[in-house]
Amino acid sequence: MKIGIVGLGLIGGSYAKALRKYPYEIYGIDQDEEVISYALQENIIKKGSTNPKDILPLCDVVFLCLYPHNIVSFVRTNISYFKENAIISDVSGVKRFIYDRLELYLKDDVEFVFAHPVAGKELIGIKHSDEAIFHNANFIITPTKHNTEKALNLIETLAYQMGFSTVTKVPDYIHDNVIAYTSQLTHAIAIALVNSDNQTENTNLFIGDSYRDLTRIANINELLWSELFFVNKDYLKRHIDSFISELNLIKEALQQNDESALIQLMEKAKTKRSKLS
Amino acid sequence: MKIGIVGLGLIGGSYAKALRKYPYEIYGIDQDEEVISYALQENIIKKGSTNPKDILPLCDVVFLCLYPHNIVSFVRTNISYFKENAIISDVSGVKRFIYDRLELYLKDDVEFVFAHPVAGKELIGIKHSDEAIFHNANFIITPTKHNTEKALNLIETLAYQMGFSTVTKVPDYIHDNVIAYTSQLTHAIAIALVNSDNQTENTNLFIGDSYRDLTRIANINELLWSELFFVNKDYLKRHIDSFISELNLIKEALQQNDESALIQLMEKAKTKRSKLS
Repeated sequence: MKIGIVGLGLIGGSYAKALRKYPYEIYGIDQDEEVISYALQENIIKKGSTNPKDILPLCDVVFLCLYPHNIVSFVRTNISYFKENAIISDVSGVKRFIYDRLELYLKDDVEFVFAHPVAGKELIGIKHSDEAIFHNANFIITPTKHNTEKALNLIETLAYQMGFSTVTKVPDYIHDNVIAYTSQLTHAIAIALVNSDNQTENTNLFIGDSYRDLTRIANINELLWSELFFVNKDYLKRHIDSFISELNLIKEALQQNDESALIQLMEKAKTKRSKLS
Repeated sequence: MKIGIVGLGLIGGSYAKALRKYPYEIYGIDQDEEVISYALQENIIKKGSTNPKDILPLCDVVFLCLYPHNIVSFVRTNISYFKENAIISDVSGVKRFIYDRLELYLKDDVEFVFAHPVAGKELIGIKHSDEAIFHNANFIITPTKHNTEKALNLIETLAYQMGFSTVTKVPDYIHDNVIAYTSQLTHAIAIALVNSDNQTENTNLFIGDSYRDLTRIANINELLWSELFFVNKDYLKRHIDSFISELNLIKEALQQNDESALIQLMEKAKTKRSKLS
């Protein structure tokens, strides 16, 4: 089986490193010649090119490891080069948007399996790629009416082979709603927390692990995340509102000196958090 | 030098474990007989009692490792048992409150050095105590007009010996303001984030490291933290408001489709975060 990876960045590079351990031939496409050279030199891919026409016709499976808008434009430009019966997957953190824009372009002789590997880190580029980020991570597939069991199973198998610990299949609108809460809201919070630092003191000297943990992701890739925020903005705005309401419950308990209300909010959070892995 | 530790919980136990490596005799006071037995058996302390009168008169330095209100009541009850010229320190995460309530009780022949070790974990009790939590952590001293250089230097030296990487001296009201932001606000956010989970799906299957990191501290010790929140509520409420204003800037950028505003907020956060250790 020949697997093509389009976009050898942090995620694409990590996909390649995770999959090269199996008896697959890994091919790479990237717009940057130097990235291709590096990937070949480090044996991350077996063959690579900046020109999709050189690689796409050879690949049985293709992973589009690009930002959301680039996934759409890449498919629109290159749909005719995919191999017959190829299975194409993506890694975007928003799913309805991708499907909406690609539906008209889906050809009968290729099959798209939309997926979201819930993993990453605050660094970009193939040099920081590391398959360890997938270990014990979640993988989500958003099946469409066009999907076959065979293709869904193949992507699921590859996800487990890459080290993901769960593979969940849900409709894309559910994915987008939950991810707006678990992922985009958390990034919005980290940004707002760092930006609300109005201390005249050196904050560095006062922080503990809690502040470090809550703000780690504020070291954000603003081009990727502004795309994700805008594409999923309706869900995200709703979750921002719910979150602010909850924070205001804490503030009200303080204002009203209602200790039992505050303790109840803390106990509720503790119980819910203890159920998380 | 004989060092007394009052309250052999997570922090008191960790203080004892960190300090027993040096040529000090570590004595312990705890209201729980079993905790004293455990601490003696594990060689965490050399001598221990549930009765402060047995221990306090022997100690050159005493660390009060109790919750804020208990620090105040312990001192009020036991002030007469401290050794002459003893140096007494505490570990409370709020400082003005402690000083306000103790000022009348401060005797001329003992000296209080108020301090805050900015470290902890989401577990309680001596069995989870571990001096490693202090490594590379911040330590803050809030000097008063009664303090001598000698006593301040002694507590600073002990902090470095325990493994803290910085010791900062600031007035208590500055401490309380900054800590309301770096510590109490972060805990309020984690609680509100977990409590605003209104998913019908199993959130577990959708989370990544960002959500795990932002909610870790929601597994909260509600008795300690409700005390800290209420004691420091004026600063905390103000920081909640500033934080909500920042979050609303993100929401407004989304509402107005203002991509450059959103990217600017992200870049600002990224720059600020990169300056943190």
